[in-house]
Amino acid sequence: MSRWAPDARERLETAALDLFVENGYAETTVAQIADRAGLNRATFFRHFADKREVLFGGEDRLAGLLADAIRAASPDATLTECLLAAFAAAEAAMTPQQRAKAAQRVLVVAANTEVQERGLLKHARIAGSIGAALRARGADELTARLGAEVGMLAFTIAVERWMEADDDEPFSLHAAAALSDLQRRTAELDSRSRLSA
Amino acid sequence: MSRWAPDARERLETAALDLFVENGYAETTVAQIADRAGLNRATFFRHFADKREVLFGGEDRLAGLLADAIRAASPDATLTECLLAAFAAAEAAMTPQQRAKAAQRVLVVAANTEVQERGLLKHARIAGSIGAALRARGADELTARLGAEVGMLAFTIAVERWMEADDDEPFSLHAAAALSDLQRRTAELDSRSRLSA
Repeated sequence: MSRWAPDARERLETAALDLFVENGYAETTVAQIADRAGLNRATFFRHFADKREVLFGGEDRLAGLLADAIRAASPDATLTECLLAAFAAAEAAMTPQQRAKAAQRVLVVAANTEVQERGLLKHARIAGSIGAALRARGADELTARLGAEVGMLAFTIAVERWMEADDDEPFSLHAAAALSDLQRRTAELDSRSRLSA
Repeated sequence: MSRWAPDARERLETAALDLFVENGYAETTVAQIADRAGLNRATFFRHFADKREVLFGGEDRLAGLLADAIRAASPDATLTECLLAAFAAAEAAMTPQQRAKAAQRVLVVAANTEVQERGLLKHARIAGSIGAALRARGADELTARLGAEVGMLAFTIAVERWMEADDDEPFSLHAAAALSDLQRRTAELDSRSRLSA
């Protein structure tokens, strides 16, 4: 296999996930990942800053997709419409191939605190991108932060459902449903409603 | 100073924050922290698993305070009342002394990704504790997660305002105000409302 394959990045991600699941995250070295992908260590570090990044390399692209979609939404779009536009744009990163990887990634992340921490940093940065995009549209500080948090919660729930689903329903439909489910529960946040109905 | 002081934990926290601000987080060693506190390295590791933990040692106690208060709230308490009970209980951990430390901590965390990651892990665990306590009261899965996220956002905003405030208004009042401010914005999440009013 050529060491200059244009799909090097994806091959490294696939090799890493396979090895992490087979042998454990801590037990796997960058050299082993590169070897499994038919590439060398230097190539690995051209694509990823460290071993943890290979698990979350797609998150930076995702943050860009979500934020760009919010910025591009119609000027009179509601907060909900902005989030739905973001979820629709995320579809490009949520392919069936990514879906298989997502399930492996959950296993790896659950088993390792160091990896969890990096995942949370990526999550916080995506929320930050969404918040910044909402602020750029004129949302006030608290609305932007609330929108980003609720949007990310909908996104997280949608990823869980998407991974567990038996059918091939596209990610954006799961995301829209999760947001709608959360919206129905915001009434619970009203100070008068009883928690246990 | 005695090496067996009962306030060893707090002295280590104070010494660590001072050194991190003076010399930088990465540049400070555990030995230096222990030395500044008039204690030894072994004592440090009896109180904290690693250098990062000294910054977030109070978070585990905080998670317990919040969750216990939610569990102890009246059976017919609303979600809002549960969160307000949690904020009132947090007061015990949010002393004027902690307020001074919080400002130092923000500086240290902002300057170091590794520390940010640990902070996010603690944040996620506190949210998890709140969610579990809400679930134990009969809240459904999504309501518990929404309540935990919005509660944590209110908490975060309250910490920011508490640190910046000129007066000595207690933390729980800032938290109640932040929650109320967010509640007024949940209407924006209604799918019909315009984002930029």
